[in-house]
This record gives sequence, C-alpha cells and structure tokens, in this order.
Amino acid sequence: MVLADELAKKQRSISVAEFFEKNKHLLGFDSPVRGIITTVKEAIDNSLDACEEAQVLPDILVSVRKLGNDVFRVVVEDNGPGIIPEKMPAVYAKLLYGSRFHQVRQSRGQQGIGISAAVLYAQLTTGRPTTVISRTDAKRKAWKMSLAIKTETNEPEVLSEEEIDWILPHGTRVELEFKSSSGAKKKLVEYLKYTSIVNPHARFRVELDDESFVFDRVSSEVPPCPVAIKPHPYGVELGVLKRMAAASDAPLSEFLKESFSKVGEKTAQEICASSGLKPTEKASKLPLEALGKLHDAMQTTKIPAPTATQCLSPITEELIVKGMEKEFQLDFIKSRTRPSSVFGGHSFIVEAAIGYGGKLQSEGAATLLRFANRVPLLYQQGACAITDAVQNVNWKNYGLSQQGLPIGPVMILVHVAATNVPFTSESKDAIASVPEVEKEITLALQELGRDLKLFLSRRDKSKLAEDRARAVCSVIPLIAAKVGEIVELPPPDTSLIEGRLMRRVILKKKTGDGKIIIHVDNYTTKDQEVSLYDISSDNAGDASTAPTFVSEMDGEFTKIWKFTLASGEFFEVSYTGSGGGMIDIQGIAENLKVVVDLDV
Amino acid sequence: MVLADELAKKQRSISVAEFFEKNKHLLGFDSPVRGIITTVKEAIDNSLDACEEAQVLPDILVSVRKLGNDVFRVVVEDNGPGIIPEKMPAVYAKLLYGSRFHQVRQSRGQQGIGISAAVLYAQLTTGRPTTVISRTDAKRKAWKMSLAIKTETNEPEVLSEEEIDWILPHGTRVELEFKSSSGAKKKLVEYLKYTSIVNPHARFRVELDDESFVFDRVSSEVPPCPVAIKPHPYGVELGVLKRMAAASDAPLSEFLKESFSKVGEKTAQEICASSGLKPTEKASKLPLEALGKLHDAMQTTKIPAPTATQCLSPITEELIVKGMEKEFQLDFIKSRTRPSSVFGGHSFIVEAAIGYGGKLQSEGAATLLRFANRVPLLYQQGACAITDAVQNVNWKNYGLSQQGLPIGPVMILVHVAATNVPFTSESKDAIASVPEVEKEITLALQELGRDLKLFLSRRDKSKLAEDRARAVCSVIPLIAAKVGEIVELPPPDTSLIEGRLMRRVILKKKTGDGKIIIHVDNYTTKDQEVSLYDISSDNAGDASTAPTFVSEMDGEFTKIWKFTLASGEFFEVSYTGSGGGMIDIQGIAENLKVVVDLDV
Repeated sequence: MVLADELAKKQRSISVAEFFEKNKHLLGFDSPVRGIITTVKEAIDNSLDACEEAQVLPDILVSVRKLGNDVFRVVVEDNGPGIIPEKMPAVYAKLLYGSRFHQVRQSRGQQGIGISAAVLYAQLTTGRPTTVISRTDAKRKAWKMSLAIKTETNEPEVLSEEEIDWILPHGTRVELEFKSSSGAKKKLVEYLKYTSIVNPHARFRVELDDESFVFDRVSSEVPPCPVAIKPHPYGVELGVLKRMAAASDAPLSEFLKESFSKVGEKTAQEICASSGLKPTEKASKLPLEALGKLHDAMQTTKIPAPTATQCLSPITEELIVKGMEKEFQLDFIKSRTRPSSVFGGHSFIVEAAIGYGGKLQSEGAATLLRFANRVPLLYQQGACAITDAVQNVNWKNYGLSQQGLPIGPVMILVHVAATNVPFTSESKDAIASVPEVEKEITLALQELGRDLKLFLSRRDKSKLAEDRARAVCSVIPLIAAKVGEIVELPPPDTSLIEGRLMRRVILKKKTGDGKIIIHVDNYTTKDQEVSLYDISSDNAGDASTAPTFVSEMDGEFTKIWKFTLASGEFFEVSYTGSGGGMIDIQGIAENLKVVVDLDV
Repeated sequence: MVLADELAKKQRSISVAEFFEKNKHLLGFDSPVRGIITTVKEAIDNSLDACEEAQVLPDILVSVRKLGNDVFRVVVEDNGPGIIPEKMPAVYAKLLYGSRFHQVRQSRGQQGIGISAAVLYAQLTTGRPTTVISRTDAKRKAWKMSLAIKTETNEPEVLSEEEIDWILPHGTRVELEFKSSSGAKKKLVEYLKYTSIVNPHARFRVELDDESFVFDRVSSEVPPCPVAIKPHPYGVELGVLKRMAAASDAPLSEFLKESFSKVGEKTAQEICASSGLKPTEKASKLPLEALGKLHDAMQTTKIPAPTATQCLSPITEELIVKGMEKEFQLDFIKSRTRPSSVFGGHSFIVEAAIGYGGKLQSEGAATLLRFANRVPLLYQQGACAITDAVQNVNWKNYGLSQQGLPIGPVMILVHVAATNVPFTSESKDAIASVPEVEKEITLALQELGRDLKLFLSRRDKSKLAEDRARAVCSVIPLIAAKVGEIVELPPPDTSLIEGRLMRRVILKKKTGDGKIIIHVDNYTTKDQEVSLYDISSDNAGDASTAPTFVSEMDGEFTKIWKFTLASGEFFEVSYTGSGGGMIDIQGIAENLKVVVDLDV
C-alpha cells in the first residue's frame, strides 16, 4: 500500500475547542490557580462591556468559595442588559462566538473566546457544567441554564433550562466550578484593585471564603460606549479588500465611501485616479490585478487619520488620579492622556500616570501597572511592549536611579486603549511590540518624568531649606534667652520667627483690653485649607469676620472659621470678649503648624 | 425594544480562519518579513515530518525569489511520501486539520495550523492562491492544485486542479506568493543553518534570488519515526477521562489497560481499589462523582513513567557534535542527551551542547541556539524557559563571566524533544516555564559546564607550561653552545630537549655505517595520526617495519609509513641504505612538529 494512502487515514479536522483544550495555556489557563483568575477576569470583562453598552453603572458581585475537595465555585453577577435565552448557549458554550470581533471599536472582549474557554476549562477539571442565569427586562422572567461544550464539535450542549424568578430586573450571573489548589486570593484582590482603578465608575462587591469587602466607584458617570467605526483604508489588507469588493454591488467610488472611514467624495476620486481605475466601475467586477492597484493607491493617497473620539474610551487624566488616590497613598501623582494616534489603520490612545512616595515601598524596582482597554495585565510583564517602553526611558534624567525599571518608591501606570490591541497571545497578558504604540508610551512617560523631576527637586530644595532653618531655629531660643538676660527682661517669644523659618502655619491669639485678636499666617509654600477652632466663653457676636459655624454647650462657645489661606497670606479676626479657652487649627498636619496662645 | 434583543443581533460565530486572519501575529505572521520565514519554516516542518514517517532521507529545495513589485515567491519541495489528491485541499487550505494533533509522540507540526496559516497569509497579502504539486507513488501521476481558504467558513476552495507529469517519483511542492519588503535572506540562512544542525540527516538546497547553496547532511541514517503511544494516566484531565469513559464499552479495569500507557492488570486493580470502584463495572456507566474518584486514584497510584524511547527522537550526542562542527569552528565542543523525564504525563528529553573558542566572537554574550522537536526557535528569546534556565546557571562556577547569559566565545545549544511541547503561543517561538523542563535543562548545562571548566583550566595550564617551556628553550641553545666551547666540541643538538619541553612530535633521521634509523616521538598530549614521508635513493627493502606505501620515480623512492602514535609513545624503523634525500611528517600542524635530519 502506498504510504500516502495510509497517512491520509489519520488526517482529520480538529475542533477549535479540542485545540484550546489541549493548548489551554494559550488562553491563560495554564495552572489551576491562574484558571480562577482568568475566569473572573473574563466574566468581569463581559460584565463591564455589557454595562457600557447598556449605559448602566456596573454593580458586580464576585465570589470565590471553596466547596471542599479542591473544588472552587466562582460566581460573577452583574446588573448589565442580560442575554436572551436563544443566545445563552452559544455565548457561553461555543468558542469563537460573540458580537465584538467584527467591530472596529474599543472593547475588553474581542474574540468571543474568553468566557467559553472558562466553561471549557471548568468542565475539563471538574467535569461539571456551568450555570448561567440571565434576565433582560423587568417585564420578563429570568432564564437559568446549565451548559457544557461538546469538545469534539465546539457546539453548546444545554443540559437543563428553566424560567425562574430572580431579584435583579436585568443582569447576568455565571457560576463555574474549578479544580484548583487555591482560591488565589492575593492575586485576585490585586486584579480587582487594578480593575477598579481603570474602571472608576464600577463597584465590585467581593466575597472570598469568609471575607467580604467592596471596591467602590469614585465616579458615577458611565463612560460613553465606544461607537464602532468603519475600517480605515490604511489598515486593510489586499485579501480583505478583495472580499469586501466581491460583496459590494456599488460602483468603485461609492464602495470606497461606504466601506471605509475618512473617505469622502474627494478622497474616493483621488484613490481612483491614482490607481488608474474608473470610479464608475463595479467594485465586484475588478480583477485581482486592479484590486492590487487599488490597494496600493489606498495606502499612498493622503487620508486623514481615523477619528478616535467615538471608538475609543480613555479613562481621562482626572479619573486615573482619582482611582490611584483611592487605592494608594502617594506624595505625588500626575497623569497624562496622549492625543490619539494610529498603527496599521487602528486608532489608539496611550494614558500614563506616575505616583511617588507616600506608602510605596522605598526600596526595589518601581511598581508597574499595565492596562489594555481598561483591563489590567497581570502576567508576562517581561514580554510586554509597555515594560520595554518603561525600561527604555532614561529615568536618571528625571532624578530616579534605574536598573531596567526605575528604582524607588515609584508607581507607573500605563493604559493602552485601542480598537484592536495587539496582544502577544490569546491570553491577553502582554502587548506586542508595535513601534507606534511604544513611541506614544515613551512620550507620555517623558512628560510625566519632567513633572516628577520638578516635584523631586522642589522637595529636595525644601528639605535643604528646612534643614538649614532647623539649624538656625535651634539657636534662636538660646540667643533670645541670652538677650533677655542681658537686658534683664523675660526672653521674647521666638516661635513666630521659627514658624517663618520653618515654613509653617502660625496661629496666634492675643487677648488685651477686652479685645481678642486671632491671627493666622501661612508661611508654607502651598495654599492651606484652614478650619480654625476657637473654644471659649466668648460668643464672638461682634467678630470682624463672622465664624462659619458656632455652637454652644454649657456656656462654652465653639466658633469655627473655615477658609483657604494662600501661601504667604494671613487671616485676622477680632472680637470683644474675655479670652481664655483653647484654639487650634484642624486640617493641617501637626508638624506644619505652630499655635501661640498669648493670654494663657 | 429591550437592549438585549438588539445586542443579540450582533452575536455570531467567528470562523477560526477569520480569527487567525485578524490575529496573524499569534501564528508568527506579524510582519511581512517574518511571514516569509514562518512560511518556509512551516513548509519544512511538514516536509521533515513526512520524510520521517516515510523513512526517507530528506532532500529539500527552498527557493525565495522576488517577482517584482514587493511580491516574493516561496517554494518548498521535498521527496517525502506526498499527499493524496483528496486530502490536499484540507491539508493546505483549512486551519486545524492534520494528523498529528491527536497523537502522543514527538513531531514538528502539532496543530494542523502552520502551512494553512501560510496559505491564509499569502492570499491576505497578495490575493493569490497557493499552488501545490504532490505525487504519492512512481506508478501514479502527480496532481497539481490551486488552493485558497474561504475565510468566513474556514473551508478550502479548489480553484483549479490537473494531473501532471512530474520528475520526482514521490514528494510535495508548495508555492506561495507573499507581499513583503524583503526576502529576509539573513534570517532565512540562519534558520536553515540551525535546522540543518538538528536534522543532520537532511539536505537543503537553497535558492535565494541569484545565489544558490547547499546545507548538506552529515548523517545518512534516517532517525526512527517516533511511534505514537497512549496517554499516561498522570497527564489526563477529568473532563477528558469523562469523554474517554463515555466512548468505551469495556469494564473499568479493561478500559484502564486499553486506554492508558503503563497500566497493566496490577496497576488497573490498584487504581480500582484505591478509588473504591469495581473493576467489572462498565466505564461508560460511571457517574461523574465516581469518575472524580477514579481520576484522583489515577493521580495518586504509583505508575511507572511513560516510555520515551519510542515516542521521542533525540538527536543524540554524537550527531549534535557533528552538526555543530559542520557549521562552526570550535576549540571545544561537548554535548549531553539527558535521560527522559516527565511533566504532566508528557515525556520529554533535554539535549544540550556547549561550544567554545574557535571562530566564535570573543566579546559579548554567548550565542544561544534554542530548539524544540528539532525545530529552531528564532524569536522571543527573552520569553523562553530555555533562556531562563541558561541565565539561572551560575556560569562563574565554570570559568565564564556572566551578565544574564555567559559572556565570551561561547555557544550554547538546547534541544527540548517532547510529545507535547508547551509553547507560549501558536507561533511556537518560545517554551513556557515548566519547572520539570527547566530543571532538566539546568542539569544538562551544569554537566557540560563542568566539562568546559576542565577544558578551560587545562588550556590555561598548558598555556602556562608552554610559556615556561618557551622561556627555557630560548636559553638551551645558548647553554649548549657555551658547553661546546668549553669542551671544545661542536654544540650538541638540543632540538629534542626543546621538543619534549614544547610538547611536539619529533622526527629524527640518523645515518651511520650504511644503516638508517628513523625515530618519531609523540610528546604532545594527544594521540597523533602520523604519515611519515621518507624520500631518498634507498628502497628500504629490508625495513624493520615495511612502509605502508612505496613508489619510485627516476630512482627516488617515496616511502610512507602511516600509523597512530599515542601520546608519550615512539615509533622507530631502520633499514640499510646510504641515506640523504628528505623526510617529513604530514597530518600534523607545522607548529607541532620538529624535524631533525642528522645526516644532512
């Protein structure tokens, strides 16, 4: 028998489910622990995308509980628009099924693989199906389905389904059971914290075994749902153009205008002229050679870059700062949202932030937070273009030492938002090296580096001044005492001089002749929010500036003045009274204020 | 209208061809230049696998030629078993179609994606179909087909087909046309050189534009084709076990013996006992809970590791050395083939080699050659477990300096042969981090490191000894001359002393009283292949050792003795004659020999 005949018998189709079952590491299911993280991530990606489409503020429950015997139940529940029963099997139990693959716009899910891969992996490790509950409208009941994937065919199998009552008016709940050695608590909390930073409009209620806690929203504005745009002529390949042309029944110039973004009448005519083709020719009738010329002309004709405002959804500088401040205590924080840019016809925007000091670890390498389309990237930091770009910045220029990453109490956040994120693998762990993207990241970081340098040099300068001032201050009381001795008077009060030298806020209360004067000087370099408290038997009814708030208890009047005091400015108030009691300033750190009560 | 109804309209199936068309970087087609390399690689992988199956010595033609206008034609032709016409469309124009996916054995191709991805990418960039010619038997004609992939459905499209005459009795030729900015010559040559090293039985004829050259075979033994084995119980997941059990109609103990390798009657009984299940129970009737117990028992029962000799095909230490010596000039080379090992039920073998000195660059980091299943890995070195393992060895222990990789004129080769190579992505660029594999790599490198250290220290020692000897030798003739002066005799011959000191081969011819004595001393540290030439008017008819070869011309006799002279040994021959003429040794470098002709 001829060998080829024999070999032919072994050749057969491989279902995409078989393929990914065998190659589960490609989807981020390479270890049982990671499987749990990836599942939560895929479910949350879907929930956030769906809530954005429905313009709902996401309220998401995440629960991971050990059922015993190394099996963990993962539940993710959202208040999104829900999924109609007809679509539930394919969405959850068929790989390569979804709505976002063919759309040119920013979304977390792209491929229609993620959540069904989780279903595949759950049934692989425990043999158990996945339960999905979804409700699409308060007027309809909810549907509950038990689903599995037929691996050999990549088709969904509905094991049971029923209409049920459900408390949420709309939303989706998915429950999967995994075999795993651990609930991956630490990594999961990390993932949720980072997700919460770049989705400041979302609220996550978390239940991990016996603990429960919340990552709350800091913004109650739903970001606009990115709108799908048509492909840009620069991004289309000849093979795709051929398919598009074959499917059109329009003349060439109409075809170009209808099918591509940024192509108007003028551009269409230019492309036709440059390719030597008639604008009136039917696109579907063009032979391959003509399409080749058309394709060349599309790449060489000057066409404006795609509009990024509709199809992308950057977090914005303000919300990045809010998100980071919520989760980390920092002395310095700045963020940048770069203008939109383009690679291979795909729009993208880079956002970055740098945090410094505070409670960040002062030793070791900087913490790098990587994000793509509002999703944190937790693995393969070393293989990511973001890491490359961060390491290629010369941080020594900005006052940081560096060994690859900058060293010190530094946190760097980079977010790449794109209509098509160039991931290095389906597990979406790392961004591939695309020169245009790396350049934008570098520019954002350099801008932030300059701000950081300014902060660090000011801090160093003020630290130097403070050291000097401290040295001077330590001798002033001695000199004052000496002078007092010589002139035979009690030593003068030197705290004000100290205050000025030490760059503090000085609060002084003087009582004399039935009149009270309170004086506040801001010798610091910053504007200060001051809450001045004066508690005494005086009601300060005739105060030159009326208190913001007065209360009385047992004849003691608490008077509060609230105001902003610019650096170098002073505030003074006077009233009639007998003085005594106590004064203080709230809202200013103890080491920044000096209180001098001259009637004590 | 309810939003979920609206969203449902957009949800649809994505064909795997659409998926990989959009995500072509996942398959190694991220740039036009790389596309050419990947295409050649995928075609050659198929050719080598097929030749191994047919037990044919591979003779492969690779041709890359510019057709003009940025289009390159890539041709790969082999003398393998060929593909029958019925299977040609699916093998070349359907992703996820092949024969090796379900087999547990070492092969280059694993997924049934590679060559069809090249077809997909060719038609994407040029719109042109791929031509395949294949012949399966000298008694049949060849078939020629023009093939494309229907992207929306991932089904093959046959654009034309015909029976043709073809010069090869069996084999396959594939021709693809790509749009690319370059033929990627340098990288292609690098790829072919490395492929040739780990496939020493293959011959590659290469045509790049106007150049043509050959990478020839150094072994004419076809490595045995790895034989597929049954899966090992330790590597099977519960979900797969469930499917296997459902498809069986045997009782449990039979099912275990039939379906898994290394499970005999005793082991099957042990597994049943440990899981609390009856060996007579039908495997297909087991409920999920029982299967869970069975699965646990399979993991905890002691079962021998899978046999690796059949299903794996290591290159062997000898052929690795031959392959490297063929392509690189090295002063030192050693290789190691480790015993087979197991991760997650998959057998694997690590082979490694270290080369040093010669024409390797003496500055900069070591050259690292990575291979998996006899295929060179050319990209993503930084993301590969092989690189990690090499960097984690402390090379300073072995006399090399190190910055991540060792520094200096060093070449490190690592080959991982496995029934299932854990690649980090479909593009098969890098091996994922698997502790068992990394450990084996480390052990192989440490063994080689010790050999290298020995070589380096010997080399250093002999260099030191040589320096000393040179110093001594330079004064010996002076002393000898002085002694001669004092005793009033001609200075004695000191070259022998020099020879001994300098570790050389000494050839001495003495003539006296009608007798000729030729004496050869091997003072070097190695065995020497000596060809001793003695050309004179003597025919040496009575030589104490007859010459290996004698010839005469014009009364001059050329006498040649060929022999191996072990380090420290001598050879002596004597005959009657008048002497004169000339003597020499061939086969030993000039700087290693001293010739003393005492009758001159």
